[in-house]
Amino acid sequence: MKFVIIGGDAAGMSAASRAKRNQPGLEVTVLEKTMDVSYSACGMPYNIAEPARDIDDLVVRHASVFREKQGIHLLTGHCVERIDPKTKTVSGTTAENKEFTFSYDRLLIATGASPIVPALSGFDLPGVMVLKTLADGRKIKQFIASHPVRKAVIIGMGYIALEMVETLRGLGLDVDMVKPRPRLLPWLEEAMAEVVQETLEKNGVGLYPGVDIARIERAGDRLKVVCSDRDRVCDMVLAAIGIRPNSAAAESAGLDLGVERSIAVDRGLKTSDEAIYSAGDCADAYHVVTGEKTWIPLALRANRAGWAAADNVCGGQVALSGVAGTAVFRTFDLEVARTGLTVKEAAAAGFDPAHVVIHARSRAHAHPGASTIWVQMVGDKKSGRLLGAQMVGREGAAHRINAPAVALHCRMTVADYSQSDLSYAPPFGPTWDPTLTAANQLLKKMM
Amino acid sequence: MKFVIIGGDAAGMSAASRAKRNQPGLEVTVLEKTMDVSYSACGMPYNIAEPARDIDDLVVRHASVFREKQGIHLLTGHCVERIDPKTKTVSGTTAENKEFTFSYDRLLIATGASPIVPALSGFDLPGVMVLKTLADGRKIKQFIASHPVRKAVIIGMGYIALEMVETLRGLGLDVDMVKPRPRLLPWLEEAMAEVVQETLEKNGVGLYPGVDIARIERAGDRLKVVCSDRDRVCDMVLAAIGIRPNSAAAESAGLDLGVERSIAVDRGLKTSDEAIYSAGDCADAYHVVTGEKTWIPLALRANRAGWAAADNVCGGQVALSGVAGTAVFRTFDLEVARTGLTVKEAAAAGFDPAHVVIHARSRAHAHPGASTIWVQMVGDKKSGRLLGAQMVGREGAAHRINAPAVALHCRMTVADYSQSDLSYAPPFGPTWDPTLTAANQLLKKMM
Repeated sequence: MKFVIIGGDAAGMSAASRAKRNQPGLEVTVLEKTMDVSYSACGMPYNIAEPARDIDDLVVRHASVFREKQGIHLLTGHCVERIDPKTKTVSGTTAENKEFTFSYDRLLIATGASPIVPALSGFDLPGVMVLKTLADGRKIKQFIASHPVRKAVIIGMGYIALEMVETLRGLGLDVDMVKPRPRLLPWLEEAMAEVVQETLEKNGVGLYPGVDIARIERAGDRLKVVCSDRDRVCDMVLAAIGIRPNSAAAESAGLDLGVERSIAVDRGLKTSDEAIYSAGDCADAYHVVTGEKTWIPLALRANRAGWAAADNVCGGQVALSGVAGTAVFRTFDLEVARTGLTVKEAAAAGFDPAHVVIHARSRAHAHPGASTIWVQMVGDKKSGRLLGAQMVGREGAAHRINAPAVALHCRMTVADYSQSDLSYAPPFGPTWDPTLTAANQLLKKMM
Repeated sequence: MKFVIIGGDAAGMSAASRAKRNQPGLEVTVLEKTMDVSYSACGMPYNIAEPARDIDDLVVRHASVFREKQGIHLLTGHCVERIDPKTKTVSGTTAENKEFTFSYDRLLIATGASPIVPALSGFDLPGVMVLKTLADGRKIKQFIASHPVRKAVIIGMGYIALEMVETLRGLGLDVDMVKPRPRLLPWLEEAMAEVVQETLEKNGVGLYPGVDIARIERAGDRLKVVCSDRDRVCDMVLAAIGIRPNSAAAESAGLDLGVERSIAVDRGLKTSDEAIYSAGDCADAYHVVTGEKTWIPLALRANRAGWAAADNVCGGQVALSGVAGTAVFRTFDLEVARTGLTVKEAAAAGFDPAHVVIHARSRAHAHPGASTIWVQMVGDKKSGRLLGAQMVGREGAAHRINAPAVALHCRMTVADYSQSDLSYAPPFGPTWDPTLTAANQLLKKMM
């Protein structure tokens, strides 16, 4: 049987390795558009922060290992342009401009997502960059190494933007962050978003939400970002306003699309075509809280979905329960984490949400070195269910979010969560874990 | 109505405050044996580590606040010796040797636990100490401040012993740890206990398990601990071989005792007497994994049980689900955490346990500053249920244990846990959280 995989990053290479482990005799072909496979994309901001490190340190497994040790037919520089479900073939063009066609018995579309680039003048100028692929990271790193960069403008204020601003400030650059929408992290409780804002300002970041970008122009050797408030002259621009699923070929092939034009898949990662699976940032998923489809492109899901798709291609019956929307990022010394639904999302999904925002100490009473940790928690007044949580703090937010995340998978009530026997020792938190304090407070609002 | 509480620490003062908040008109009397109430007992090792800090920093709420602001009749230096359920009275002797008797409508026994002191000669010598009450902490602190202490012997290797060895080494003392049983942390997987052992040895601790203690003698101005391997001359001895519930008065009053002679209570914290409740380290609890009674005296349960008992005294119908046995401690730079059952406990409880021990990195591939984190996980081959987990690592173990802890409360299967959407960002862990890697590995052993 021929198993063809389009895309050689998290989902694609996870699936390829898993399929070969499941069935060593399976013919597995991976067609990757870029020259890089299997790297830690999320690690790029931290690698860029260290000029002395090679960006290729982020490669988890080299192409040669997949080819020679695992027997995977891995082709880089192969951009698939057409999928034909009738003839069960994929075709496209190589980096050397040669056409290719492969036939498949089972196909996995793991094409990922691409950064959204505004359709404005000047975004193609040298020094205007995005960060998604390893090639993007390499380009940013080389640009910084070879240009006298003093100032950067980051367009966008999402995860990547907030990780990269830490990196660029650490490299000594002045950084302005601009975006059209008025609020920093609109999904985060306002009081908690203010904590993030204070951290950014304390670290010397120029923060300009509510600013429209008109275009980017050359300004001698530098760049000028023309904004609604004023022009910003800088040496580099990072456009980090979001990503969209790479689903064009799937759509052309007649596959059903789902949320935000991601490829619609069932719990077994199968698309609307019996022979075609999809996994990773290009595909949708069920949300464990709402039971509805969602599109939350994150690395763990990509890996897990790649495995599950490979298992099913090999005759398995794996059904994934779905995602809780658990995510975390660090910006400077601040951990920002979320799981489940916001109040707005909960109301939109038909719940009757109540919520609280509390703050607690990150360590026990009188324990040295404590900082403040903020916890938001959302519950459903009708069913009593826990619906979501958010945290911001200088320590303990990133891992602490996982207890409510598991509770969401179990459809636990806030009352039951509040009875959870969580760990306590003075260096790690107060006797009542902050998530328990939040649950206790939330219960009062749910009565 | 008269609500009398014996014991003014975590459970007792939580109950007193809660009862007054529930019913401001309630007559609440607390009889506390020592002169201290409401302090962070768990914080003592960290306070002792800082000679310049006052031990009273650990007092969370002063007696005057309970008395004047909250209207609680709080009597320190009142040691209850007898409970008479027929006449509904408690009686005893004050620190000034006066007898007292109080009548109650509802009684809460929150007498806590006491350190076990071996019935051997010399344990009453000056410089031989235990650490349980604030008075104990004060005594240790004063002893260290007023004596030229160069060497300490710690008898025992449990949580308190392993927290205090960090403190004493930090104060510059030579420390030998001795105990009769042959294994360090016998409940911890052997490979993980070895990691703890290496950390202790790296920090210059003399570790002597399997050593019997015969007696302690004076040795001039110093002390001599006579052991089965050799004598140890030192300046102070800390006996930390465990605690036992303070249940003597309850037993004399005819109340049912439970596991390890703790006071047996139902899910509403009621003892075998309709008018008497018990909470805190003196009382037992249901284990959420086995559904059976257990005695795991820890601070969070004490606080929670105190609240629940007060709610029920005030006419509530609170039923606590129980404890998962979640616990964590730090020793030097190592976090050690557990939740649920060990393999041995699982087998004893009638499960058919499978288990794995894995190690993973504490941060993402190629992320600087990563260390190793060990995870053990136990599942039941018959039901597929997750039964327990243990972790050891230099970062991320303390909070990470809470995700499996919540899973235990939900009676989650290992397969379902392995699908949990847990947080990921490079500074905080690998894409697959180490507990997910453990669950994935464990699943293979459970098939």
